Amino acid sequence: MSVASQAPEYIRAISPYQPGKPISELAREMGIPEAGIVKLASNENPLGMGPLAREAALRSLSGIERYPDGNGFALKSALSRRYGVKPAQLVLGNGSNDVLELAARAFLAPGLSGVFSEYAFAVYPLAINAVGAHGIQVPAKDYGHDLDTMAAAIRPDTRVVFVANPNNPTGTFVHGPELEAFLARVPADVLVVLDEAYTEYLNADQHYDSLAWLERFPNLLVSRTFSKAYGLAGLRVGYGIAHPDVADLMNRVRQPFNVSSVALAAAEAALADEEFLAQSARLNARGMGQITEALAELELEWIPSAGNFVTFKVGDAAAVNASLLRQGVIVRPIAGYGMPEWLRVSIGLPEENARFIAALKQALA
Amino acid sequence: MSVASQAPEYIRAISPYQPGKPISELAREMGIPEAGIVKLASNENPLGMGPLAREAALRSLSGIERYPDGNGFALKSALSRRYGVKPAQLVLGNGSNDVLELAARAFLAPGLSGVFSEYAFAVYPLAINAVGAHGIQVPAKDYGHDLDTMAAAIRPDTRVVFVANPNNPTGTFVHGPELEAFLARVPADVLVVLDEAYTEYLNADQHYDSLAWLERFPNLLVSRTFSKAYGLAGLRVGYGIAHPDVADLMNRVRQPFNVSSVALAAAEAALADEEFLAQSARLNARGMGQITEALAELELEWIPSAGNFVTFKVGDAAAVNASLLRQGVIVRPIAGYGMPEWLRVSIGLPEENARFIAALKQALA
Repeated sequence: MSVASQAPEYIRAISPYQPGKPISELAREMGIPEAGIVKLASNENPLGMGPLAREAALRSLSGIERYPDGNGFALKSALSRRYGVKPAQLVLGNGSNDVLELAARAFLAPGLSGVFSEYAFAVYPLAINAVGAHGIQVPAKDYGHDLDTMAAAIRPDTRVVFVANPNNPTGTFVHGPELEAFLARVPADVLVVLDEAYTEYLNADQHYDSLAWLERFPNLLVSRTFSKAYGLAGLRVGYGIAHPDVADLMNRVRQPFNVSSVALAAAEAALADEEFLAQSARLNARGMGQITEALAELELEWIPSAGNFVTFKVGDAAAVNASLLRQGVIVRPIAGYGMPEWLRVSIGLPEENARFIAALKQALA
Repeated sequence: MSVASQAPEYIRAISPYQPGKPISELAREMGIPEAGIVKLASNENPLGMGPLAREAALRSLSGIERYPDGNGFALKSALSRRYGVKPAQLVLGNGSNDVLELAARAFLAPGLSGVFSEYAFAVYPLAINAVGAHGIQVPAKDYGHDLDTMAAAIRPDTRVVFVANPNNPTGTFVHGPELEAFLARVPADVLVVLDEAYTEYLNADQHYDSLAWLERFPNLLVSRTFSKAYGLAGLRVGYGIAHPDVADLMNRVRQPFNVSSVALAAAEAALADEEFLAQSARLNARGMGQITEALAELELEWIPSAGNFVTFKVGDAAAVNASLLRQGVIVRPIAGYGMPEWLRVSIGLPEENARFIAALKQALA
């Protein structure tokens, strides 16, 4: 009997996450120089990282032979000041992916279940399945979260519900009062993981204050990341904010040095760089206009998005994607989400968006 | 019922890993300037990172807004060439801690068990307990692994055995032929995780080729790290080498972007820097001589070590440690390992070792 065949059945059943194609990979496959490739596939910040973060990252390389501060004292202090929460309410993650997984590992197990929405982020069912729990997928409403149906889907063995707001890959958004009403319906012993990876891109009339709900709802975990608007995807750092008892349990299953010293330093500096964040949001709003205008001109359907990406319908998405790749443009096919007719494009720099638009026209011609 | 009280019993029972005290933390607590502190607590490379790794790390910061290559193509290619293994045999980890945890997550679950040795690395029982499996601790022999007793401790529900060679925190070493005989005794459906975090410090007559055993023993996982001799602890990167089926299962539970772009780039470059590695090993051998001579002079007992640290007996280790801390010297108390009379000191630069020796004399006086 081989060791692999003896692994738990739920582990052997996992299909790994399919990431966006790296530029280097397309360059290898197609023999195109990397500089000629436009990648709008992973909702990254086209401005790069901010200047304060860059300086801090560079400085942190002196002394990189040391283990990181496993308690993340400096970054937690900065987050604590910025958001008016206690350091004991914080969990730092190797990207918010790690935070989502820590929630699943601390609160789920074989015999328990987790609820998530159709068309929601692929990591939720992966995290649920990887600990042997049962995933309950709730049908989407207009490609977004149907919170009433999700609340109704909670069973006695449910311990975690995942809600992405805005949602990835569809960009749908639920307003604050609806979320608050949902929280009031969820039983107190079920953790609500509110994934706000794209919250920095919300416009003024979409803003809501989820952290203000933490006192009333000690079963709420707000998850955020430095990978999107802060431009630090390559460094891997995110955080969760929750009741101290929830954070404590997650910290027990956290790897002691899960966040690198470079990521800790850059994130702390990035948090202070409000100018860069505002600039990134403005660029995104303009690019969203540029791309959706082109989609309208092409008479393509798209899902209104509150994030830094937009999902649009092309019919044979695999063929269109193949054509885009041949033209050196990487977007994200989402057939794996059950949307084989759709593609997701991240908002880039104006010239990147223009390259994408031209390539899309060519692909559809 | 609170959400925290509903977490699985085995999660609520976890005591987190106690890392070495960071320099910044001691500086805050004691009001000592950081520059005046000597940290010999976490088996880090006192030379820092090598020049090739530094250059690669710096270069990688351009483009850090991009997600890392989740498949680690370039680093896996380099490891593959260096060790003559297939890329499909490799699992990259956020430090080798991640590799150890991936093994536990892929092969253990509630109702199964993992075997480890008394005085072995604290992460083994943590990783076993965090997935709800049962940890079987086998009494040590001369502070090291008693492989016969470990083999005999394997039960029908055992799926993983952890062996550290050299062992941390005691520095004990098992020669290759003994390990090979152990592998021959372990059932084929039990994964042997051979943790070689300190293997680069072995001297010529200690060398053995564990990778040559992989063909005969498809239940072997060799785990290594860039945190020790390569000087990249702050970046978090390690790797596992195993049968492709084992690696595949571990990659399924791996977070898609578990290793940062900086870590991937620096590790790839570090692997090519053989001169730096040799220099680090030479410095370590000299420092080991410097420190053990002083221990002999002080008539203290120590455990002969094959790593970059040595564990010695002082009696009231808590009191001696407190005195060392007041003198600005951080070593590692190991009472948590059931060794309350011992301290572990990492080998530093000659002047750091001298500071430690002087402070130890003072503490014992």
